[in-house]
Amino acid sequence: MGTQLQGDERGYMLAFLGGTGPEGRGLALRLALAGEEVIIGSRDGERAATAADELVQHSPMARIAGGDNHEAASRSEVVFLTVPYEAQRPLLEQLRGSLMGKVVVDVIAPMRFERGRGAIAVPVDAGSAAEEAQELLPDSQVVAAFQNISAETLLDPSVAMEGDVIVCSDHREAKALVMALTNRIPQLRAVDGGALANARYVEQITPLLININRIYKVHSGIQIVGL
Amino acid sequence: MGTQLQGDERGYMLAFLGGTGPEGRGLALRLALAGEEVIIGSRDGERAATAADELVQHSPMARIAGGDNHEAASRSEVVFLTVPYEAQRPLLEQLRGSLMGKVVVDVIAPMRFERGRGAIAVPVDAGSAAEEAQELLPDSQVVAAFQNISAETLLDPSVAMEGDVIVCSDHREAKALVMALTNRIPQLRAVDGGALANARYVEQITPLLININRIYKVHSGIQIVGL
Repeated sequence: MGTQLQGDERGYMLAFLGGTGPEGRGLALRLALAGEEVIIGSRDGERAATAADELVQHSPMARIAGGDNHEAASRSEVVFLTVPYEAQRPLLEQLRGSLMGKVVVDVIAPMRFERGRGAIAVPVDAGSAAEEAQELLPDSQVVAAFQNISAETLLDPSVAMEGDVIVCSDHREAKALVMALTNRIPQLRAVDGGALANARYVEQITPLLININRIYKVHSGIQIVGL
Repeated sequence: MGTQLQGDERGYMLAFLGGTGPEGRGLALRLALAGEEVIIGSRDGERAATAADELVQHSPMARIAGGDNHEAASRSEVVFLTVPYEAQRPLLEQLRGSLMGKVVVDVIAPMRFERGRGAIAVPVDAGSAAEEAQELLPDSQVVAAFQNISAETLLDPSVAMEGDVIVCSDHREAKALVMALTNRIPQLRAVDGGALANARYVEQITPLLININRIYKVHSGIQIVGL
């Protein structure tokens, strides 16, 4: 059931901070359907519990709970950042302690939208949202992944996923863990994208895909060919 | 035969400025094999003629000539820029007159290489090499394309191409022309990438692919899925 966690629940768990948005809910759903136990986090724990309940209604086998961001981060070994870019810094400054020693998966693609131009990448001083997260969390293992995966497709389990997830990190074991998690979602393939510094290129593919989506009226993704 | 052009040769032709490099030679070869008449340009016309002769030796049906950059630009309706980024500005300032009214295809991905880090995108004030080219050539129709296509694969006609060419331009007809040219190369697919402002994202995919190539020991490309 998608209710708030009981005090004695434990174990390997995936948290989705800002997980009430479409990307967070979609990823949580697909990973829960793959058998993972997930917790959706939000500033408002009640809202997170409601989002979790709604996902479970459509997928009764899924183990999805909800809680506030702090609770979700504290209880999980692997924490996904699915907030808008603007919210990343305050969130990480607030939760730095709870994220120490953990794998933090940065799904964020910094973007803005402009009438007539569509999606535009927002420049980040650190190079990418993921590198900024690693600077803010020196004691966590930041992995960049899933930025290019359509939230709409994730949220519709009747549609098979398609394409690649490019995974970048400076932490080898954390990268391997996230690649393995990716490969648990049917049809998705993890591609080793090398160092975290490469996350800047991956994050910028997202506005390109969104602009292509507008031209073709689709939910596109990318695949690396020739591997 | 891959000799320098005779004075009375005319007609629809594709030029490759800086075409003695691997990307220029490879694209010229594949488009010549698709039936196009191409001319390789270089600062040194003799060197271009030699490069053309070498390509023709391996593909006797291909119509490939060589000449200096100015000659190649003057004689062609569609002009590909396949110089390193550093050479783009001086080249375009020199050839602006010859390129007036023409379709200019910018293949350039501004990059540098750093030991231990691999390929790194070089920031461009205009946003991308292609947008810079359009600023320098206000009377030409600049189209960004082919930045992500492996030169090594292009140069080996025994290997089928694979993947997509994302084509960006603010000139609708020029974009359609370059998309049609792309689709003449077997297995390559043109994808409408929207406005020229999107070229920045496409150019930055190239250093990512190069870094992935190093990890997997391949010549990778990308494909847009879900179209």
